Amino acid sequence: MPKLTLDISMSLDGYVAGPNMRPGVGLGDGAERLHEWAFPTEGFREAHGDSGGTRNVDSDVLEEMLAVPGAFVMGRRMFGGEGRWDNPVWGDAPWEGWWGDDPPYHRPVFVLTHHEREPLHKGDTTFTFVTDGIESALEQARAAAGDRDVALGGGANVAQQYLEAGLLDEVQIHLAPVLLGRGVALFEGLDPDRIRFEPTRTIHSPAVTHIRYRVVR
Amino acid sequence: MPKLTLDISMSLDGYVAGPNMRPGVGLGDGAERLHEWAFPTEGFREAHGDSGGTRNVDSDVLEEMLAVPGAFVMGRRMFGGEGRWDNPVWGDAPWEGWWGDDPPYHRPVFVLTHHEREPLHKGDTTFTFVTDGIESALEQARAAAGDRDVALGGGANVAQQYLEAGLLDEVQIHLAPVLLGRGVALFEGLDPDRIRFEPTRTIHSPAVTHIRYRVVR
Repeated sequence: MPKLTLDISMSLDGYVAGPNMRPGVGLGDGAERLHEWAFPTEGFREAHGDSGGTRNVDSDVLEEMLAVPGAFVMGRRMFGGEGRWDNPVWGDAPWEGWWGDDPPYHRPVFVLTHHEREPLHKGDTTFTFVTDGIESALEQARAAAGDRDVALGGGANVAQQYLEAGLLDEVQIHLAPVLLGRGVALFEGLDPDRIRFEPTRTIHSPAVTHIRYRVVR
Repeated sequence: MPKLTLDISMSLDGYVAGPNMRPGVGLGDGAERLHEWAFPTEGFREAHGDSGGTRNVDSDVLEEMLAVPGAFVMGRRMFGGEGRWDNPVWGDAPWEGWWGDDPPYHRPVFVLTHHEREPLHKGDTTFTFVTDGIESALEQARAAAGDRDVALGGGANVAQQYLEAGLLDEVQIHLAPVLLGRGVALFEGLDPDRIRFEPTRTIHSPAVTHIRYRVVR
């Protein structure tokens, strides 16, 4: 059976986003340092419609992340445009999300939200809004993905919900060699006795450490 | 110049010890899971005077940790016996520390404390108690180590002090694939803008991920 996977960049002190997320600072304060490993790579630039960039293991990992899944699931904050309806902090966020006219997904994306909305087409990515819970979003994504894996695009809250529900098969952490000090902690609020991992692959780079885990049930 | 290094096991959520450290539970509640990768190895058993155990990369890493340094520096809690004087939680801790009659160090160990005390000889390990600060402990350890590196034995508080002072050259994190949920966080209270790391070596194992970092100044 195809897997449900999560790829996420995390600081050494466990944060995946900074504090004070707001329009224009979608990752929160200071959190761009989590993704510094990705920005200069050819894989990242290609996915965002640019040329150039560095060809290295980090680029390979990034391309693999975007190439393998047949569909994506993400939370409303990761999509970015829903604050106008239900979160005052995000009051002026653009309705079309963070991702611009050519999102890097190029496959169906299912966005978890409490607010019904028509699907949004941007480039060759379609965002479908799912209001009836994480199982439904996963089911729809699996149907769209066919034989391929489904990837969680984040953020932490969605990852935690799928982890707690026992639905996540694999987590790849891109462990950035930086500290954030505060922000959104990936593993906060989970039951540490119920959730264990097994490292299945580790890729070293001078910029970040890519560690893939099987979620042990 | 020989380096000052730190080797420490950390959970995926950033903890190096559990809550409620007390006599008999020196690592705090639940924290034995941080060290599960080490216990079955030949390297660990040998260092503690036992035979048998598994010969694998984790065993190699453990042997290297204990073999390379010429001297060790640790905090009073890591030594284990000082609570009787200055910490009510540790009131009944044995004065000779956690380490029994044959500690695994086999080289000079300098223990940071606020309480003067004569050196303690256990097996071929001598614990020297240093009351005049981290620079002095490091200086004494460097003198004892000669051309070899000095290793910090932990815990988090001592590591943080040396990191903040810009005295730590290298950190090897043994990233255990477990969550603790609460306890002592390795990187808490540091200035995230001042401290950065560069991964220099990564060793994969199914039990733990060993990542060595150069501390970037």
